[in-house]
Amino acid sequence: MARSWLDIDPSSDFSLANIPFGIISTPDDPSPHVGIAIGTYVLDLKILASQIGAENLLPDAAQSQTDVFAQPTLNAFAELGRPVHRHVRSQIQHLLSKDTTRPELLKNNVELREKALVPQQRVQMHLPMSIGDYTDFYAGYHHAYAVGVMFRGPQNALQPNYTHLPVGYHGRASSIVVSGTPVRRPVGQILLDPKAEPKQPTVASSRRLDIELELGCFITKSNALGQPVSIGEAEEHVFGYVLLNDWSARDIQTWEYVPLGPFNGKNFATTISPWVVLADALEPFRVKGIENSTPVQEYLKEKKEETVYDIQLEVDLTTPEGNTTTITKTSGKNLMWSFPQMIAHHTLGGCPLRSGDLLGSGTISGPVPEQSGSLLELSEGGKREIQLNGGTESRTFLKDGDTVTLRGFCVGKEGERVGFGECTGRVQG
Amino acid sequence: MARSWLDIDPSSDFSLANIPFGIISTPDDPSPHVGIAIGTYVLDLKILASQIGAENLLPDAAQSQTDVFAQPTLNAFAELGRPVHRHVRSQIQHLLSKDTTRPELLKNNVELREKALVPQQRVQMHLPMSIGDYTDFYAGYHHAYAVGVMFRGPQNALQPNYTHLPVGYHGRASSIVVSGTPVRRPVGQILLDPKAEPKQPTVASSRRLDIELELGCFITKSNALGQPVSIGEAEEHVFGYVLLNDWSARDIQTWEYVPLGPFNGKNFATTISPWVVLADALEPFRVKGIENSTPVQEYLKEKKEETVYDIQLEVDLTTPEGNTTTITKTSGKNLMWSFPQMIAHHTLGGCPLRSGDLLGSGTISGPVPEQSGSLLELSEGGKREIQLNGGTESRTFLKDGDTVTLRGFCVGKEGERVGFGECTGRVQG
Repeated sequence: MARSWLDIDPSSDFSLANIPFGIISTPDDPSPHVGIAIGTYVLDLKILASQIGAENLLPDAAQSQTDVFAQPTLNAFAELGRPVHRHVRSQIQHLLSKDTTRPELLKNNVELREKALVPQQRVQMHLPMSIGDYTDFYAGYHHAYAVGVMFRGPQNALQPNYTHLPVGYHGRASSIVVSGTPVRRPVGQILLDPKAEPKQPTVASSRRLDIELELGCFITKSNALGQPVSIGEAEEHVFGYVLLNDWSARDIQTWEYVPLGPFNGKNFATTISPWVVLADALEPFRVKGIENSTPVQEYLKEKKEETVYDIQLEVDLTTPEGNTTTITKTSGKNLMWSFPQMIAHHTLGGCPLRSGDLLGSGTISGPVPEQSGSLLELSEGGKREIQLNGGTESRTFLKDGDTVTLRGFCVGKEGERVGFGECTGRVQG
Repeated sequence: MARSWLDIDPSSDFSLANIPFGIISTPDDPSPHVGIAIGTYVLDLKILASQIGAENLLPDAAQSQTDVFAQPTLNAFAELGRPVHRHVRSQIQHLLSKDTTRPELLKNNVELREKALVPQQRVQMHLPMSIGDYTDFYAGYHHAYAVGVMFRGPQNALQPNYTHLPVGYHGRASSIVVSGTPVRRPVGQILLDPKAEPKQPTVASSRRLDIELELGCFITKSNALGQPVSIGEAEEHVFGYVLLNDWSARDIQTWEYVPLGPFNGKNFATTISPWVVLADALEPFRVKGIENSTPVQEYLKEKKEETVYDIQLEVDLTTPEGNTTTITKTSGKNLMWSFPQMIAHHTLGGCPLRSGDLLGSGTISGPVPEQSGSLLELSEGGKREIQLNGGTESRTFLKDGDTVTLRGFCVGKEGERVGFGECTGRVQG
């Protein structure tokens, strides 16, 4: 495992094996621009690119593009394509490596180190991409099954289409926020007595505010209208991954969602983690997903067997008093559909996915109830109290002042850790 | 009725009472910029603003903003807000009026007229706005009822929520195209035998390609995350209206849409007309919508009784051989929910609507089957042939090479006509 001349704690998500990209602003440069996370620091790529020269960061064909690091979103960088990202990540790893052959560029350049390496607590993170469209899938098999049992019983838990195609719906791009943004509990129409006839909704704050633990996937290369992306090409359309909390107001959702799907129950906020972990950084952590015993159509057949990532996922709930409990632990492998399959399906009819578009995996739950990615499952539809803080407190759904934090990381054979940092949000009443 | 010194045919959608805004490119200036339609001409506002001076076009507070007319979308102009649009429209009406008090500016300025007034056939139209998010509602009562009867019978035609809230779903912004763009018949998963068990989809071109006749509403003023727009404020958030054809692949949609709503059945293309008719231009044509006997929640109560527009809507189908039949005629008044109600509902939980966002009304059908806004209804779910060209041809759904053209216009008491022009697209196999 390559080591850095920077002192990086082995428990850091941002090892030399990672190099995730984000949009930062710093006390010296308050206009949002590009940086990467390394240990407890951010490396400011706008400064770095202007000081060490494009030839030490970008491949030949992209050396006129150093202004991508001065942009307020990662879209321009993403559009350069995966070979460029691979080159830049590798150059940065080399610059930060203990064994760098060019120590004069950064390692021994005290002046540049002081300017370009900024402690993370001094950096403000921004939404990493300008997101044109957001699509949320439903690829977490155990979640789909568990919720299906709740609503329709075990015989009809999954709809007949579930194993034939990655079910998804169009989400709302305008309410996607970066980690740390407060989330206001939404007001909406809800049925206080769902069984009463005729049904009479009330307008009130949601009483069943929930989370959804998901992975988000950013698109790098656009496809044109009418031009599907084949499953073999789909990997080249992936920029990278983030954690995603698809906040859900279950009571609003239940009343509104038939027949056209979720709307105000979802569109009040979706939180993503600020650092985009490049697809390449996750390559070593590929595993098989959940087996699908239904033969899938040709356009969904992957050549690789290992199509998802073994990302360890955790959710912490912190009460208004500041007590934190890890309420679930699961893995990114609990998906029945891979992101390349989602991309192939999404574009099958010719829908364009543009650089910066975001795909959500759907809630990721493990096979047993304690590994669920939503409170709906953890509380069995609100019937069971989730114990917090050693049993001194409990929840079914979220209270005002609660903070929810998603975490995700992979650990390699030599202990190298590739993680996402935190995806967090506090509920405001 | 004010008359123009330009010769405008009384049947033109683009009378002096209209002044719709669009994005144009011309032989002399191929970079997209702003123009208005008047009779058979386009008035190039980029040229006009640079020649007559900001003070003759924009109100005092916005006179530094003449570059909004040089932008490739209407977003910057829309963001200036309705009082500015009202002023600009009024100034243009005055410049083009027979009785203008400033004939030296345009009427008698032969050089400027030759440069700024371009025949429409020499102008290329572009998508008028950069659309962040697209939401499609379901406010056409007769359509919702007719389709509900088809799927669930007359007793359960409408879901219990239908009369309580404007049902809507998030659509796909990336596949919205301007009138004239060819529409490729989508490939997708369809059930050739929907009754066979177990269900076995096939991947094939849609056999049930349909249209949806809708009105589209563009947002002008953004609301912040967490800040609902009240019904009283909602009008001020409307920029203007377009015709919208929400192309739909019914066979793809039927198989995919449970439980999360339409996806690939819709996201292959949505066509809009290029000219945005300002909300002010439609003011004289307000009428009552379809009465809702269910008492609605306070946040949905409109002060005005006349909340929708009596826009005459028509759909032409032109066969590959070039024979055109008007297959339906209906009116924009056939909505149970108004756009201000849609805006109030959409933002109730705090969802931000941004300048340039698009809302679709949902399919607009009249009370009798011949006034239906979709082939699904006109063909009774594919069971009845729709007669074309005097009965020499027929359709249930669209054939390759068919062209569908939506038209919409209002006619005032003195014959003044405010229309949208055409919203057209040809099906490619």
